[in-house]
Amino acid sequence: MAHIKPALVENIRKDIENLNMYNETPGEGITRILFTEQELKARKYIKKRMREVGLEVEEDAIGNIYGTLKGSNPRLSPVWTGSHIDTVPHAGSFDGMTGVVGGIEALRVIKESGLRHERNIQVIVFTSEEPTRFGKGCLGSRAMAGDLTRNGTNYLVDEDGKTLSKVLDELGYNNEQFHLIKKEKGDVYGCVELHIEQGAILERLGKKIGIVTAISAPTDLIIEVEGTQEHAGATPMPVRRDAMAAAAKIIIGIEGMARTSDNPSMVATVGKLDVFPGATNVIPGMVRFTVDMRSDNFKEKEQIINKIEVLSNAIGDIEGVKTSIRIVSHEYPAVADAHIVEVMKGVCDSQRKEYNLMVSGAYHDSMFVSRFAPFSMIFVPSRGGISHHKDEWTDYEDIKSGVDVLAETLLIMSNEKENTERNE
Amino acid sequence: MAHIKPALVENIRKDIENLNMYNETPGEGITRILFTEQELKARKYIKKRMREVGLEVEEDAIGNIYGTLKGSNPRLSPVWTGSHIDTVPHAGSFDGMTGVVGGIEALRVIKESGLRHERNIQVIVFTSEEPTRFGKGCLGSRAMAGDLTRNGTNYLVDEDGKTLSKVLDELGYNNEQFHLIKKEKGDVYGCVELHIEQGAILERLGKKIGIVTAISAPTDLIIEVEGTQEHAGATPMPVRRDAMAAAAKIIIGIEGMARTSDNPSMVATVGKLDVFPGATNVIPGMVRFTVDMRSDNFKEKEQIINKIEVLSNAIGDIEGVKTSIRIVSHEYPAVADAHIVEVMKGVCDSQRKEYNLMVSGAYHDSMFVSRFAPFSMIFVPSRGGISHHKDEWTDYEDIKSGVDVLAETLLIMSNEKENTERNE
Repeated sequence: MAHIKPALVENIRKDIENLNMYNETPGEGITRILFTEQELKARKYIKKRMREVGLEVEEDAIGNIYGTLKGSNPRLSPVWTGSHIDTVPHAGSFDGMTGVVGGIEALRVIKESGLRHERNIQVIVFTSEEPTRFGKGCLGSRAMAGDLTRNGTNYLVDEDGKTLSKVLDELGYNNEQFHLIKKEKGDVYGCVELHIEQGAILERLGKKIGIVTAISAPTDLIIEVEGTQEHAGATPMPVRRDAMAAAAKIIIGIEGMARTSDNPSMVATVGKLDVFPGATNVIPGMVRFTVDMRSDNFKEKEQIINKIEVLSNAIGDIEGVKTSIRIVSHEYPAVADAHIVEVMKGVCDSQRKEYNLMVSGAYHDSMFVSRFAPFSMIFVPSRGGISHHKDEWTDYEDIKSGVDVLAETLLIMSNEKENTERNE
Repeated sequence: MAHIKPALVENIRKDIENLNMYNETPGEGITRILFTEQELKARKYIKKRMREVGLEVEEDAIGNIYGTLKGSNPRLSPVWTGSHIDTVPHAGSFDGMTGVVGGIEALRVIKESGLRHERNIQVIVFTSEEPTRFGKGCLGSRAMAGDLTRNGTNYLVDEDGKTLSKVLDELGYNNEQFHLIKKEKGDVYGCVELHIEQGAILERLGKKIGIVTAISAPTDLIIEVEGTQEHAGATPMPVRRDAMAAAAKIIIGIEGMARTSDNPSMVATVGKLDVFPGATNVIPGMVRFTVDMRSDNFKEKEQIINKIEVLSNAIGDIEGVKTSIRIVSHEYPAVADAHIVEVMKGVCDSQRKEYNLMVSGAYHDSMFVSRFAPFSMIFVPSRGGISHHKDEWTDYEDIKSGVDVLAETLLIMSNEKENTERNE
């Protein structure tokens, strides 16, 4: 095939730096939470950029943004790329944004190379990949997969007690069209998401491209420990039912379970913990905390949930507290499409790039896309593996290199015909 | 001496119930934090009540309220009673309020009994006994003891970043008069604070009156654990520096140190804990928590601080995190005045009441009053020992009984002359 033009580092750098301006916490990392003022400004910026490079822009009823590069045969199912622009609090500039900015740059390159492509190619900005605001991640891709319904938006509540449904309504999204978000198998030919690794494997191997063969799936729990709220000075140690002391014991147990697993993809994290009433001189009456578990082995996650239940009950008995475990989400690992992986390997070979086949420990919107379309992902290196932190860094040259692989892969897929029946 | 009239249960009940209306969290216990709208309303109510029973009302530069019942020889140093009206979040109706409402009722009884008393008798509402708003308790009595200066109010900051100094200024308190708050030895003849026990010892013994012989002093620490904020999915267990997991280990250690002490008055509590950034899918980069320690043995508290330091360093080394300990306050236990205790024993005998001599595990404004004046306290029973909680309960009859002991004690003290040189 004819050669495609190279992506421009400058375009990528400029877009990432411009997005950095939409930030609630300047100087303390990037904080851009779903549908806040700053996130809405970032959406506006991205839509403007999409139009500048010649894409048609649409938005669905949950705010997923579609930028479309029209192909010569738009009746064929489209090829997708994309990622997200929302962040966790005090995050970096690259998680999510790399795949959006890189996706737009890939489509610009394809367009300006003037090469024939049959299928439409779309770059998607998925709504709220991070669970920060509503406690649940991948809201946009989840809705596409049919896992979040219009009715379900009434049960997602933010810290101010506002439902997602109400937020969407206030922003003018059309609830009546919520059912149109959902995709069926065959609606999308295939999807390739560009993302930073958020780990340090590529860096250690000295490779610039990771090709993702599976995403290890998250399971989110909320554990509540209910003790007795009493005066910290007047309650002798032996009669206490201290929710915090009991919670600490459960947390250490959970960490130990993940640490001692034979499966290196098994991890568990307590990232959020609230103490009630939360006063220096009051024995906590209640502690609520989250557990984020990941593994490429669904069965092992089930076993760990059972072990946590046994441990919580035992500690509850010993400490005189009540414990409860709520399973907020419990996902199956997603396996990448073998054909797309083969295409990408070929592209890397032709571009003389060493690649690493790898499992993604982090989940991504691609995990939900896998429910209705063949997918894979391209990883680019993260310095020191640091992510979800202001020190998160990926060299712009490395993103550019990933965009070159992405653009050529999307172009090849958009001209594939014989495989359209493959997964449809 | 002539007989003093009995206190009226009805007055006590009405005042407590009226104060309950000034509450930020109706239905979920009483929340009345220093200088919030509700607390300011409660102050207004109390000043009105003081005037109704014939007391002169004054307020000093940190908001301590003085209600004075004039004696026949007002040049003599006054006798004090009093307590506080601020609460922790979701508290009960009795901690603090009992001593304010009961103190006003005691002064009313003395006045209406028409018995001669030489010294002025004052009921004090001490500002912010609870550390809820500024992280430090006993602000009013602390300033009286000279332990909180005008300059010091610039370093007490609430969660909104506002200093106590600024708050006082906005409310119109006169900073220029801050130095007048401080009391010298001899300024106050003696102080008796009425308070609920906040423990269950009186209930277990079936006694209605506790006479306090010492207050076991609090030590407050803030411990910070600094790890590495990383992605919860993409960071394998062996390379993590998880601040929450490390903090949990320190918390369990601290609890164990208090639990295994031979001294039953030794307690330690982690009542407040904040996780940063506090997102489900981010390994915590920082955890900050408070430790509230109490003991009647100052030396043992010192030893425990040292042990916590050794433990934190060891866990820091093992977990790859940095730990730091800040001592926020570190108080000496306060010993009650033997003479006042004797007076109260006599009053109880004459009123045919069984009493229990006891150490207060909770600290009170009396601890700071002890720095400049002889003191003791009267405890009345707490049902189930529950305090700092909406289920906190003391029978109004029991408060009335305590007020009767208080009134007679204050009257006796106000007519004492020969002892004036005792501690002055």
